[in-house]
Amino acid sequence: MSWVPGADESPYNIHNLPYGVFSTAEDPTPRIGVRIGDFVFDMKLAVRAGNCQDCPTCTALQDQVLNRFMSLGRQMWTKVRTQVHDALTEPSMREVASSWLVPIEEAQMHLPFLVTDFTDFHSSEHHTANLGHIFRPGAEALPANWKYQPLGYQGRAATVMPNGTAITRPHGQRIVEDRVDFGPSFSLDIEAEVGFVVGSANPLGTGISPDEFKEHVFGVVLLNDWSARDLQAWENTPLGPFTGKSFATTMSSWVTPLDALAPAMTTAPPQGPETPAYLKEADRYAYDVRLSVQWNGTEVARPNLRQMYWTPAQQLAHLTSNGAMVRPGDLFGSGTVSGPTKGERGCFMELTWGGQEPVMLADGTPRTYLRDGDTVRIEATAPGPKGTSIALGEVEGTIGPARHG
Amino acid sequence: MSWVPGADESPYNIHNLPYGVFSTAEDPTPRIGVRIGDFVFDMKLAVRAGNCQDCPTCTALQDQVLNRFMSLGRQMWTKVRTQVHDALTEPSMREVASSWLVPIEEAQMHLPFLVTDFTDFHSSEHHTANLGHIFRPGAEALPANWKYQPLGYQGRAATVMPNGTAITRPHGQRIVEDRVDFGPSFSLDIEAEVGFVVGSANPLGTGISPDEFKEHVFGVVLLNDWSARDLQAWENTPLGPFTGKSFATTMSSWVTPLDALAPAMTTAPPQGPETPAYLKEADRYAYDVRLSVQWNGTEVARPNLRQMYWTPAQQLAHLTSNGAMVRPGDLFGSGTVSGPTKGERGCFMELTWGGQEPVMLADGTPRTYLRDGDTVRIEATAPGPKGTSIALGEVEGTIGPARHG
Repeated sequence: MSWVPGADESPYNIHNLPYGVFSTAEDPTPRIGVRIGDFVFDMKLAVRAGNCQDCPTCTALQDQVLNRFMSLGRQMWTKVRTQVHDALTEPSMREVASSWLVPIEEAQMHLPFLVTDFTDFHSSEHHTANLGHIFRPGAEALPANWKYQPLGYQGRAATVMPNGTAITRPHGQRIVEDRVDFGPSFSLDIEAEVGFVVGSANPLGTGISPDEFKEHVFGVVLLNDWSARDLQAWENTPLGPFTGKSFATTMSSWVTPLDALAPAMTTAPPQGPETPAYLKEADRYAYDVRLSVQWNGTEVARPNLRQMYWTPAQQLAHLTSNGAMVRPGDLFGSGTVSGPTKGERGCFMELTWGGQEPVMLADGTPRTYLRDGDTVRIEATAPGPKGTSIALGEVEGTIGPARHG
Repeated sequence: MSWVPGADESPYNIHNLPYGVFSTAEDPTPRIGVRIGDFVFDMKLAVRAGNCQDCPTCTALQDQVLNRFMSLGRQMWTKVRTQVHDALTEPSMREVASSWLVPIEEAQMHLPFLVTDFTDFHSSEHHTANLGHIFRPGAEALPANWKYQPLGYQGRAATVMPNGTAITRPHGQRIVEDRVDFGPSFSLDIEAEVGFVVGSANPLGTGISPDEFKEHVFGVVLLNDWSARDLQAWENTPLGPFTGKSFATTMSSWVTPLDALAPAMTTAPPQGPETPAYLKEADRYAYDVRLSVQWNGTEVARPNLRQMYWTPAQQLAHLTSNGAMVRPGDLFGSGTVSGPTKGERGCFMELTWGGQEPVMLADGTPRTYLRDGDTVRIEATAPGPKGTSIALGEVEGTIGPARHG
């Protein structure tokens, strides 16, 4: 139970405590905060009140991004989380700590960390098979390598944008009536994803085994990996996604610590027969993260992260299997989260079966891909302890017209 | 003419003046320096002697990386270059400025800038066609989209490493006797490339036209984009290069300013018939950068950057054509630099025609791909004014054995 008014009834209750970076009109310097109910707990004020003599943790918690704090490792992440928990539950703390709370409506949220690399995976069997059926009817739905490794590619770190960023419809090359043309994308799509944020680095030349996942990953965010399907189709062979993806990826404001997701751990789908030894998990688990995809206010899909064939622990193991380093602020995305039924498809290309089956919005208008002015919002919740539930923030963006032409 | 002893006869003469970041045993803090002959000109000492009251330029020049200085824009880049030129040529400066010189053998070189994103292109028609002939004999050598756009993909920024970094042979998935296997790469290769370093950012949602190239690009580096061809072949479809590339890319210590390459500007190969309007250049030019690829001391190739089909100005225009931002420290690679003859092939897969035609090294041993203990060095020069020549640094790396197995 928290002494913060309304916190116990909020999905940002004491079991959640996600980290973000915020500023206010009075103090425009970005600083680290923890969400509790409808408030942000100002970590800079809390740390300064502690009269610490500049220990690495207290120094890191006064930074403008989470990277240095995330680099300190799991033991310190859990320790600080416990201290924040205690400050927000101890009745004796109420008087002093109340002055460290900022009402959420006064907080301007920023990117919570500097994205040092962004890797995107492709780990939903349902999503991959749906794309195969749409683009190569009659052929094998999954690529030949798909069950052997979590396929991924590097994305653009510069264009991972804060929640709410307006999305300009991208220009690009695509095929129009069998000719190459350059202009605004006509099949602008979303991908509902969960992102995993690395805190602890590994030395160059060494890998991270799936069972070391929790030592390296600090927490999770929500992602909308905006995708121009027409640009992607034309450029994809042989080097993979590039301008069809690199124009924008929206990230949620709140990083939910992995500790908060412990009650959401559940069984992952069975694998086989081909999983190589370096991707085998002594303790294979998934996270029960329930996404909601809303198109102009109409909920059009409810996929669940637990249905992904490849787990985030396997993704990180594959990413580092060649000795590649990850650093604090490394972000890797699950890939589109899709389930087996139509109501669980995490992108519009799947949901409208390649644009052939429009979805009807609540205002009575049909949609295949995104129109200018459309707003997409992705939310997620996960089970907390004892029947509670926690929220994982949200990502929202509205499509603006292409810049010319 | 410089007053620095030996500088006029050096490829690091007064027309070169590349930037790097170095430290010394006496002062282990990394700082910015300019190479002149066999010395490093310590910019921190030079700036501090100027008694400036913390203007943005003098502050940036005391950083541990070049990013903030590079963000200041072309006008400031040229101004500082002129000031350094004057300090190193004015005889009256000799007495005071001599104390700002560090002998090159005392300088420990570091990564010159924080790599904020790494994009790699694929812009040599000869390289692309050679790969097509090797892998798809009898079929169309160039991919269908190749002449319409400079194909590229995002690489891993974390593993862009300083010159001299030891390269651990990567593990990965590859096909052995028709079966999927995980183990040390057996076809480890290089790619000799030139990298372009962005200084000035663009606003999100706007593009950079080819004719704006010099306003945004600060300078060039050399790259060796180490490549595990067996890993790459198996993972490449459908998402492109990933673990076959992301284990290491070596970058040279010196960033050669674009201003130093003005005398190297020359005509670029003709294009056609398909180049789209947004990639057309009012003033189409290439840089005459002459690479030398040395395998255990034997020069095995001499490709030239001027032969690339797509110019760096077109690469940057394509990269931002969808409105993607570039930031100070954004690095984009030319792709393997290869020319029309066998002696101009910038990777070993081409040079040995897929491993079928070994090259003979000076020690009498044949090679197809890299063996443990092999050293590869890439150097480059470009013409300077009045018959002079400048060096573009070097990248060197030695292959160490895989970490296990």
